[in-house]
Amino acid sequence: MNEESMVKEINIALLGLGTVGMGVYKLVQRRKNQLPKKLGCSVKVKRILVRNASKIRDGVDNDLITDSWDDILSDDSIDIVVEVMGGLEPAGTYIKQALDAGKNVVTANKDLIAVEGHELLVRAAEQKCDLLYEASVGGGIPVLRPLKQCLAGNAIDTVLGIVNGTTNYILTRMTEDGMEFDEALAKATDLGYAEADPTADIEGLDAGRKLAIMASIAFNSVVTFENVHTEGITRITSTDIRYADAMDCVIKLLAVGKEEDGQISVNVYPMLVPKNHPMASVNDSFNAVFVHGDAVDDAMFYGRGAGELPTASAVMGDIIDISRNLLQNCTGRVGCTCYRNLPIKPLGEVKNCYFFRLQVEDKPGTLASISSVFSQHNVSIKQVIQKPAKKHGSELVVVTDFVKEKDFTKTLEALKHMSMVYEISSVIRVYA
Amino acid sequence: MNEESMVKEINIALLGLGTVGMGVYKLVQRRKNQLPKKLGCSVKVKRILVRNASKIRDGVDNDLITDSWDDILSDDSIDIVVEVMGGLEPAGTYIKQALDAGKNVVTANKDLIAVEGHELLVRAAEQKCDLLYEASVGGGIPVLRPLKQCLAGNAIDTVLGIVNGTTNYILTRMTEDGMEFDEALAKATDLGYAEADPTADIEGLDAGRKLAIMASIAFNSVVTFENVHTEGITRITSTDIRYADAMDCVIKLLAVGKEEDGQISVNVYPMLVPKNHPMASVNDSFNAVFVHGDAVDDAMFYGRGAGELPTASAVMGDIIDISRNLLQNCTGRVGCTCYRNLPIKPLGEVKNCYFFRLQVEDKPGTLASISSVFSQHNVSIKQVIQKPAKKHGSELVVVTDFVKEKDFTKTLEALKHMSMVYEISSVIRVYA
Repeated sequence: MNEESMVKEINIALLGLGTVGMGVYKLVQRRKNQLPKKLGCSVKVKRILVRNASKIRDGVDNDLITDSWDDILSDDSIDIVVEVMGGLEPAGTYIKQALDAGKNVVTANKDLIAVEGHELLVRAAEQKCDLLYEASVGGGIPVLRPLKQCLAGNAIDTVLGIVNGTTNYILTRMTEDGMEFDEALAKATDLGYAEADPTADIEGLDAGRKLAIMASIAFNSVVTFENVHTEGITRITSTDIRYADAMDCVIKLLAVGKEEDGQISVNVYPMLVPKNHPMASVNDSFNAVFVHGDAVDDAMFYGRGAGELPTASAVMGDIIDISRNLLQNCTGRVGCTCYRNLPIKPLGEVKNCYFFRLQVEDKPGTLASISSVFSQHNVSIKQVIQKPAKKHGSELVVVTDFVKEKDFTKTLEALKHMSMVYEISSVIRVYA
Repeated sequence: MNEESMVKEINIALLGLGTVGMGVYKLVQRRKNQLPKKLGCSVKVKRILVRNASKIRDGVDNDLITDSWDDILSDDSIDIVVEVMGGLEPAGTYIKQALDAGKNVVTANKDLIAVEGHELLVRAAEQKCDLLYEASVGGGIPVLRPLKQCLAGNAIDTVLGIVNGTTNYILTRMTEDGMEFDEALAKATDLGYAEADPTADIEGLDAGRKLAIMASIAFNSVVTFENVHTEGITRITSTDIRYADAMDCVIKLLAVGKEEDGQISVNVYPMLVPKNHPMASVNDSFNAVFVHGDAVDDAMFYGRGAGELPTASAVMGDIIDISRNLLQNCTGRVGCTCYRNLPIKPLGEVKNCYFFRLQVEDKPGTLASISSVFSQHNVSIKQVIQKPAKKHGSELVVVTDFVKEKDFTKTLEALKHMSMVYEISSVIRVYA
């Protein structure tokens, strides 16, 4: 037997052959000659599960295609199941059955991991199998492995990110080109950045799922999607963005995870971000994840949060990691690291600074009356600018100090009931 | 036996108790209670090697201190040797002896890894031991593990970084506060960012070592410090920085590694970086590493490139990784990935764009004569601005298109010999 024929072969099965599946297929082919030298084994796509097996697919070996999950599940030569079909079912069932059959799993499925991640990781551990999901957050950007391994020596108190490319593209167009939301969304749809039904993106649900996944790892405590409060960007106007600019800020949809007072807060909402913060210059469809730990201080990971090959890059990293474990007989090497069980902080208790605009009557005592409403609710003002309004009265542009959401909400209610207050607008939290 | 007493204990020995050593010591203490839950084992500092064992050290258990390397080498209970003394010797000998004795090694020693990294990795592999060195590049920023594992599915063509905090701090002060180099260096020294002898930083040697380490991993081919061409920042003036600003650029000391035409180029020099590039907003003592791969496209890692706890964060990540391998009996899981042997591209063959200023005689035909020198040397001009000089004649501000270093050097020589050229200054490469 010559040396080459002795190289071990790792067999993978792809579940799904959409954008990410094709990317993984292409990348495995492209790296065919390098992997044996780099890893000491070759990686081969043995089977591909699709819904319609009769469809002709350019550039894909048709013998690999099957529409039968059982073909894969019962094939003992398949070491790694790569789930890139998305959605909760049947992906969830397939992954569980694969793990129960002792197969290792790589998935890019944020919907599933954000809901059932912990349960699946426990199941993987019982089988001494790997379940890796780097591609589920930040596309090609290495985020989860760095958090779980490189920064494992830290107590992390903050993990926040721009983790949805669609909304970041829309906000960038609104900022750079002065577009309104609808126009920018239409452009994102034209370019294929936004799906036909953009709800999950523009309402912050996609970012919320990714935050649940990141927060579980960062804080070593299970966080699921239902724990995350989500707000989208549909109410952001080009006026808001101009005002943000005047405050030397940009508006970004941030997924913010924090541990404080023994609780975890996980919230997705648009925020004013100071231009000198590294997150402020993350533009277009790029993503970034920012972390603060007690040892590492600030760190940030930046790159392509979606797309065929960037996402395939993350999936391939996981496949290679598992291959190394298979060669060393140590799959299941890094399992779930959620050894704590921290409560989720209710939104009302979360502290933020707030930016907003008030259109008020222009008469003596207005500012004093309004100020007294703030102080009654224990809200400190960081900055207030009064100027003539366009139509009538004055405009007050206010930035508060840190205040609990519930106290701020009460303050706004009180202001709304004042006769001298015509309108309250542009209420946006400030990242500080 | 109760459950707790059954938790395995990983014993480490620290070689050196300077800034980084103290950081690691503190961090191991700080994480004492969490690690057993997170890892399934505890990590204990068993021994600390110092030069002067009689010195009293606040906050350190004196029983751990030894000045005898043999105390550590012959102690079979020590699983991991953490070398944080720095310098080539005796660190190199200690690491080799530790590996030969079957001990795993974590090091932060860029000087050593940039020279002997490959040899040491081969030695580690022979012993089926781990040799990890995440802290040697980018301090606390996860760089090497992401490159070697997360991005392992990519063909990487570019790895470049701002990997020296001292010079980045100096350039930031020159940019933001208009300081000259000497003044900014003095400030860096005051703040402890620059060492008493700042040569290794300001001449680009430190960045060159880190580049050799990153390039070896990125391009899967051994690159050592002697392969790296290094230029420092001592000749950069506040005038250069003002001109850069006028071109919408900042000046950064970049460590640039590229693979092209089957060759590797590794060069450290100051460059003009466009302000809209993510590297341009990496300021003060922060570091960042930027990567381009065929699948992931652009990615960047940003954070604290030095300091007690950030560096300890990287060392701890390595200790935890090895602990996991020890628990699974799979040390040596990821070894050297340099399976290629690419030649180094000579500096003369490296292509860059160049920025420079010419003080020239103000008479008809000057621009034509100068232009003909460029075209004789096959140098295309991207941009030229002519304006009256302060004293006499005109100033030409020139940006070339991509040109080989050797052709550009010949062009400069030819220009210097022209009687109509009074002075050539601010010759700086442009990152494009």
